[in-house]
Amino acid sequence: MADEAPFQFLHNEVIQYIYKSADSGETENGRNISRLENMGFRVGQGLIERLTKDTARFKDELDVMKFICKDFWTCVFKKQIDNLRTNHQGIYVLQDNKFRLLGQLSAGKQYLEQAPKYLAFTCGLVRGALSNLGVKSIVTAEVSIMPACKFQVMIQKT
Amino acid sequence: MADEAPFQFLHNEVIQYIYKSADSGETENGRNISRLENMGFRVGQGLIERLTKDTARFKDELDVMKFICKDFWTCVFKKQIDNLRTNHQGIYVLQDNKFRLLGQLSAGKQYLEQAPKYLAFTCGLVRGALSNLGVKSIVTAEVSIMPACKFQVMIQKT
Repeated sequence: MADEAPFQFLHNEVIQYIYKSADSGETENGRNISRLENMGFRVGQGLIERLTKDTARFKDELDVMKFICKDFWTCVFKKQIDNLRTNHQGIYVLQDNKFRLLGQLSAGKQYLEQAPKYLAFTCGLVRGALSNLGVKSIVTAEVSIMPACKFQVMIQKT
Repeated sequence: MADEAPFQFLHNEVIQYIYKSADSGETENGRNISRLENMGFRVGQGLIERLTKDTARFKDELDVMKFICKDFWTCVFKKQIDNLRTNHQGIYVLQDNKFRLLGQLSAGKQYLEQAPKYLAFTCGLVRGALSNLGVKSIVTAEVSIMPACKFQVMIQKT
């Protein structure tokens, strides 16, 4: 239970720190989101490198996504993604019914507008992990009722 | 092995972020150290609250310190403190022979001057945890050969 707590608490502090040191304007909010996303990107790159050290080569894109949903997610959030869907044309939707980084906000719709800053880091995390596996992507997140959350991964063909 | 990795990578990113956004002057370095220490303080407060939720009341100060060395340290760093010493007059020295947050720097003396910024967060972490258990303290850290590290806790009598 307390296993992922240090990470979770530190993640909250990072958000506080970044938001405290800046103005509250619209532009600045966008910049803060990018800052969090960039941090996540680099953490994702580092983590995936360590996690895939001894794994076999991935068969295809879907195989990579399954690894993200299982091993990668478990390493960071101590649970797997609950549902993975794809249109088989480069779009994947990862659904987490109880996303840990939203766990400290009240469930329901009350704090929905606070959600983006709690998701930006994780969007970067997934993008960074995929990027180090040679998959370029755009990752966005969507919440309709906390603490459930969907991450949409759009693969960028080169 | 990879269990503490998300926390460790995020911790590194936080240091990069704080140091990147500021000048490199002496005063600024001191301020960055405080920033990290403060973050650690709040994380320590949150963590200890969660960890002690179901534990019995502590007998005395030494009992509290043992909890920090075992349960608290294991929660954050996946290992216990290797050695705890005290002069029985309010000074405790916690020695970690393989401190995780120094693990990504080369062992030995080469990067010694980089060590303080990798220790500040943890000093705050211990101070925050103790503070929430009603023990006021000053926590400093000392490295002679990486990745071994000593944390000195001076209890402040009120």
